[in-house]
Amino acid sequence: MILSPEQLQQFDEKGLLFLPNIFTLEETALLRNEAEHIFDLDRKEIWRETSGEARTAFAAHTYSEPFRRLGTHPRLVEPVMQILDGQVYMHQYKINAKAAFDGEIWQWHQDYGTWARDDLMPAPRAMNIAVFLDDVTAANGPLILIPCSHRAGKLPAGHDLETTSYPLWTLERATVTRLAEAGGLVAPTGPAGSVLMFHCNLVHASPPNISPFARTIVYLSLCHVDNHIRQFKRPEWIAHRDFTPITCLPDDCLAELLPKQAAE
Amino acid sequence: MILSPEQLQQFDEKGLLFLPNIFTLEETALLRNEAEHIFDLDRKEIWRETSGEARTAFAAHTYSEPFRRLGTHPRLVEPVMQILDGQVYMHQYKINAKAAFDGEIWQWHQDYGTWARDDLMPAPRAMNIAVFLDDVTAANGPLILIPCSHRAGKLPAGHDLETTSYPLWTLERATVTRLAEAGGLVAPTGPAGSVLMFHCNLVHASPPNISPFARTIVYLSLCHVDNHIRQFKRPEWIAHRDFTPITCLPDDCLAELLPKQAAE
Repeated sequence: MILSPEQLQQFDEKGLLFLPNIFTLEETALLRNEAEHIFDLDRKEIWRETSGEARTAFAAHTYSEPFRRLGTHPRLVEPVMQILDGQVYMHQYKINAKAAFDGEIWQWHQDYGTWARDDLMPAPRAMNIAVFLDDVTAANGPLILIPCSHRAGKLPAGHDLETTSYPLWTLERATVTRLAEAGGLVAPTGPAGSVLMFHCNLVHASPPNISPFARTIVYLSLCHVDNHIRQFKRPEWIAHRDFTPITCLPDDCLAELLPKQAAE
Repeated sequence: MILSPEQLQQFDEKGLLFLPNIFTLEETALLRNEAEHIFDLDRKEIWRETSGEARTAFAAHTYSEPFRRLGTHPRLVEPVMQILDGQVYMHQYKINAKAAFDGEIWQWHQDYGTWARDDLMPAPRAMNIAVFLDDVTAANGPLILIPCSHRAGKLPAGHDLETTSYPLWTLERATVTRLAEAGGLVAPTGPAGSVLMFHCNLVHASPPNISPFARTIVYLSLCHVDNHIRQFKRPEWIAHRDFTPITCLPDDCLAELLPKQAAE
């Protein structure tokens, strides 16, 4: 998957790109089933909502074969290498659950705000690429992003330890309002298998999921190898310390895991 | 405004109709400004979130000229008379605020559940017609409705006095899940001035508004005059006791209140 000059320009300007239907229904179902299995595991990498429902499964590429393959998938890693202009390593790997009825808010934040403050990542030369494992709709807690907000650079933030079970560096309301009045808001919605790329300084949030349908999204946070983190304060399964450049697997690496169709 | 046979059939089948751009930008701005003024009033009819922000202004047609006119507007009252097949009175009148950042959830419920239990309204021969005073988007807490759920009739409900500042008869998660698996979910989004009609037994909810943009919607709950409530337990400004049939004003009744354009 190679981004066109127009797509590269749009990413540069808006800070995000939405690409519907990048993975097939079969590939997506494989990953969704595996995610549901993972959420039931009793592992330290599974962060839970106060309700007990899974909120985030970290580092699933280290203990799940389908997610290991997704973490080296050319449809995700190659466009990011194109944007970051070089080899990348996996800084963070999250399966965010947003469970039916119980999935809680992610407050307004920039990912790089946390990576810089907690992990001493030198520059915002890193980004997210996300895969929808469920259909994302206006009803089930879609991601909300402020286009162009990455151009504001790293913004002042406060460490919110109270709103949810997960600590997060969050932005002031006045900052969010100012940026949204300038850039507007987008909430990319689309079928399972869609891909969303966004800059690590892009301001975003997501509301609770009050619907009866789950909304699971996998996030690969990829960082240029020269820009690796300098401080190891957070657990290695949250902020990885293996800076080896990712080598992509073939495009059919997930499809290979699917049950074989009866040949005819 | 007369609904077509196709629209009447869609309402009968799905329980809702969405009609974009029914009021002009000028009419909508007039109402929005008036709503902001009302939210600042110190009146018993203004119900507040636990944060202190306005949640619902009840009965604004009794103390605001623009909202009095909206309550007798032919673009709202006539299509409802068509569906309910006869004369209607105003059972309830709400301006629901869903303030930026602070607007809280409306849990899953049927309006008729409350009207039947609290007000002894004999039959579900009543309905809502709503006007968006702001653009409603996936980002600012849109209404979420379950198409066809009105066909389930009045469902068992529990009286939730804890989740928000406002008491509500709410549905079990298992019920919501079953209905949504059958009918799906819709979240009508569109510009300020759009109109949404829905059956009083249609199951719906809305998430918190985490965005920096307000999302105000006015709801007229109109009831066939023969079907008026029999019990006066709730305050008269919440469940009205004046069963006089509404007489529509002319179509330009709101436009009349706008500043006159310089004639040329």
